[in-house]
Amino acid sequence: MESRCGTMDETVAQLGEFGLIDQLTARYPQGEEVLLGPGDDAAVIRAADGRVVATTDLLVEGRHFRRDWSSAYDVGRKAAAQNLADVAAMGAHPTALLVGLAAPPDLPVDWALGLAEGLRDECRRVGASVAGGDVVRGDAVTIAVTALGDLRGRPAVTRAGARPGDLVAVCGRLGYSAAGLAVLEHGLPETEYGAYVAAHRRPDPPYAAGPAAAGLGATALIDVSDGLLQDLGHVAHASGVAIVLDRAALAVPDAMARLAAECATDPLEWVLTGGEDHAMAATFPAGTALPADWRVIGRVAAGEGVTVDGRPWAGSGGWNHFA
Amino acid sequence: MESRCGTMDETVAQLGEFGLIDQLTARYPQGEEVLLGPGDDAAVIRAADGRVVATTDLLVEGRHFRRDWSSAYDVGRKAAAQNLADVAAMGAHPTALLVGLAAPPDLPVDWALGLAEGLRDECRRVGASVAGGDVVRGDAVTIAVTALGDLRGRPAVTRAGARPGDLVAVCGRLGYSAAGLAVLEHGLPETEYGAYVAAHRRPDPPYAAGPAAAGLGATALIDVSDGLLQDLGHVAHASGVAIVLDRAALAVPDAMARLAAECATDPLEWVLTGGEDHAMAATFPAGTALPADWRVIGRVAAGEGVTVDGRPWAGSGGWNHFA
Repeated sequence: MESRCGTMDETVAQLGEFGLIDQLTARYPQGEEVLLGPGDDAAVIRAADGRVVATTDLLVEGRHFRRDWSSAYDVGRKAAAQNLADVAAMGAHPTALLVGLAAPPDLPVDWALGLAEGLRDECRRVGASVAGGDVVRGDAVTIAVTALGDLRGRPAVTRAGARPGDLVAVCGRLGYSAAGLAVLEHGLPETEYGAYVAAHRRPDPPYAAGPAAAGLGATALIDVSDGLLQDLGHVAHASGVAIVLDRAALAVPDAMARLAAECATDPLEWVLTGGEDHAMAATFPAGTALPADWRVIGRVAAGEGVTVDGRPWAGSGGWNHFA
Repeated sequence: MESRCGTMDETVAQLGEFGLIDQLTARYPQGEEVLLGPGDDAAVIRAADGRVVATTDLLVEGRHFRRDWSSAYDVGRKAAAQNLADVAAMGAHPTALLVGLAAPPDLPVDWALGLAEGLRDECRRVGASVAGGDVVRGDAVTIAVTALGDLRGRPAVTRAGARPGDLVAVCGRLGYSAAGLAVLEHGLPETEYGAYVAAHRRPDPPYAAGPAAAGLGATALIDVSDGLLQDLGHVAHASGVAIVLDRAALAVPDAMARLAAECATDPLEWVLTGGEDHAMAATFPAGTALPADWRVIGRVAAGEGVTVDGRPWAGSGGWNHFA
C-alpha cells in the first residue's frame, strides 16, 4: 500500500512542477463519480442529487502534522479522513477530493508521492477519488483538501436540529488520537500502546455512520474533530439547547486508563476533549432504535452549553479553550 | 467597497479563531445557489445540472502576492478571480467558493477582513458566494481557494478538442499583468502606467466569455493563467495538434510598447508569456462567426507545439520555461 516509485532522494525542485503533477496524477485512479479528472482547468464530478456537499481544510506542517512523527502516507490518510468525515457528518456520501499542495523545493518527491498514496487509499475506503489539485512552492508543507459529496436525495443533517428530549449518541472512537499523541510526547514505548499511536497517525472515521444517522432520523450530526465537548458545544449553540452527558456512559478502555496513569492525566480528559478521531456524534428523537455501533452518552435538554452529569467540565483542556 | 470594521491593529491571535470566523462569515452574503452556507461541517450548494465543476488553487505570500505591493482586498479579488476563471474556462457558471486561510498570529484582523471583502466582491461579479472555509495558523499567509460551477446542461469544454483547421481566438487582455509587475519591479511611476499596475493587482477575467465560447461551439477552451504560449501549449498537447499564432494579430497597445521600451523589454514577451490576466483562449471550427470581443490570433494545424509565424518563440521567458 505504501509503494515508492520515485528516484531515491530526488526533490520536487529537481523533478519540476509538471513532472511532479504527472507522477501525482498517475497515482489517482478515477471512480465513476468523476466525469473529468485531473489535467484540465477544472474537474467535473457527478452530482446526481442536484446538490453538492463541499468542505475544505488546511493542514500546515508543524501545526497539524510533523514529518518526524508521521509518514507522508499517514499524513495523506489523515488529511483525506478529516475532510471525508466532514462530508459524512452532513449525512452525505463522499465523491471526490481536490488537493492543493505547497511544497518546499527540497521536499523529497517520495514524500509527495507517499502523501498522494495516502489520500488515494483513504478515498478508496468510501468510493471517492482525488479528482484535481494544485502544486505550488512554499516554505512549509501545506495541504489544502476540499471534499465533495452527494446526499442521495436526503436532507442534509445540520448541527441545528437538536431538540430537548433527544438522545445524544456517538459512533466511533473517542480520545484515541489524543492518547496516541501523549505516547509520542512522553516518549513512551510505541509497541505497548500501538493502537493509540496508530489512531493518532491514521484516524479511522466511521464514515458509513454519517449517512446511516441520517437514515435513522438524526436531528443533528457532527463529526468529533476538535473534541466531544467542543463539537457538541457547536450543536448545542446552533440548536439553542443544552446537552447533558452521562459520565458513566463515557467508557474509558482499560489500556487507556493505564496509559493515562503513566502520563499522570485523567483519561476522561482525552475522551471529552481529544479531537481528530472523527467519531460521529448525533442527536436522535427519544425512542429511536439505534444499531449496536452507536452508544447513547447523554440527552438534550432546554438551556445552553454542554455539561457532564449536569456540571461544566473543568479539565485543563476544557471545551471552551478556543474562546 | 473596501470598508474596514475591525479594531485598529488587532491581530488574528487576539481575536481568536472563532471570533475571526464570525467576522469573516459576516462579510459573506449567500446567493440562491447556496442551500447551506458557512457554519456547519460542510456547505450545501445547488448543482442543478447533475454535475459540478470544481477547481482549487493555493496562493502563498511572497510567491503569488506581496503584502507591500497589493492590498488584502486586491489579493482577495485576485485569488477569487483565478479560480472563477478556471470554472468559466470549462464553459461553466461559477456558483460558490470555499476559502482556506493560514494566517500568522500577528496578521492584522483588518487584513483578513479586507481579503474576505475582495473575495466577496469578485464572487458578486459572477453571482457566486463564499459558502465555506477554514482558518488555521501558519507562518506565511496562505490562501486555498476552491471554486465550484454549473454547466447548465452543456458539455464541458476541455483542452483536448482542438482539430486541425480550427481558428484560435482570444477574449480578454494579454500581457497587462506582466507589464504592471514590470512597473512595480522597475520602480516606475504607477500613475503613468496605472492601467497595467491595476491589472496586475486585480485581474479582470472575461468570465462570460467562457460559457459564451461553449455556446459558440468552441472545440477547446482554457484561461490564460501562465502565459499564452504555455497555456496554448497545454491545448496543443492535450488535443494532439499544433497551434500556429499570427504575430501580426497579437496587437501591442501603444502604452505597453512605451513601457516596454523603458524596461528594455520586448512587449510581445509580455503578451506571449505573461500570465494572470485570465483571458479566455479557445479554438473554434473554421467559419465560426465570432462576436467582436474575440480576436482571431492563429489557427490549429497538424503536428505539435505552439509557434509564432511558424517558428518557436525564443524569448527569455518562453513557453517551455517550466520544463
